[in-house]
Amino acid sequence: MKAKQLEQLLHKEIPISQAMGIEVDHLDKNTISVRAPFEKNKNIHNTAFAGSIYTTATLAGWSLLTHYLQANNIDGAVVLAKANIKYLRPINQDIIAYCDLSNSETLTDLKGHIEIKKRAKIELNITVKEQALVKAKMNAFFAIV
Amino acid sequence: MKAKQLEQLLHKEIPISQAMGIEVDHLDKNTISVRAPFEKNKNIHNTAFAGSIYTTATLAGWSLLTHYLQANNIDGAVVLAKANIKYLRPINQDIIAYCDLSNSETLTDLKGHIEIKKRAKIELNITVKEQALVKAKMNAFFAIV
Repeated sequence: MKAKQLEQLLHKEIPISQAMGIEVDHLDKNTISVRAPFEKNKNIHNTAFAGSIYTTATLAGWSLLTHYLQANNIDGAVVLAKANIKYLRPINQDIIAYCDLSNSETLTDLKGHIEIKKRAKIELNITVKEQALVKAKMNAFFAIV
Repeated sequence: MKAKQLEQLLHKEIPISQAMGIEVDHLDKNTISVRAPFEKNKNIHNTAFAGSIYTTATLAGWSLLTHYLQANNIDGAVVLAKANIKYLRPINQDIIAYCDLSNSETLTDLKGHIEIKKRAKIELNITVKEQALVKAKMNAFFAIV
């Protein structure tokens, strides 16, 4: 799946992602960046809205994991089980969420695990950054069912 | 502030709340319920989208606290500092988030606290329910600045 295909899939299947103007800036085997434009996702203080920051991070994690399953021929649906998020600094521009699977220990032998147990839990860290500055940090637990 | 006024304020100041079709079903001194219609907020599995569940809960907490400050003549802006959420069961209908301040210990002497310290932290529990069945639980920490 390419970034543009993923973006179209999100817009079609999760209508609020289209209303948010979600764009998939980058997608490869282990990394993703997902953008939500500022104007559609601002709040009463004219900074990025907390709900949109969370949703952008969720879409980054869910998409990258779904892409990983596809690329590795693993059957399963990805659902978010729980998450926590910290808002460290206000965001005055587009929200950009990054996720990287390359150091994810919970992905080790995922295929074998799912074949035996029929389900798995994956923990992902997703960051929202402006250049090098971290603006929000999400820790998300996805279930593969 | 009445429920309809609050709803209009959200739509005007937080544009994504309008795109989600957010409705304020109920608002009084201590309680609120906020609804997001299913069709605009569904996911690829045809259940309510995790991002929209979180956002609806966030809007319930933020709105009720903002209303509380206004009603008690307390100056301050409400911002979400951190939150965690657990998704307990899938939702197949409108998302409805409830919040109740009446047992909130962190609201005790809030006015005095803000006058001296110029800021405060408030912890709120917000639940997403279908009748009596809890579908998601959010624990949110707001800052008043």
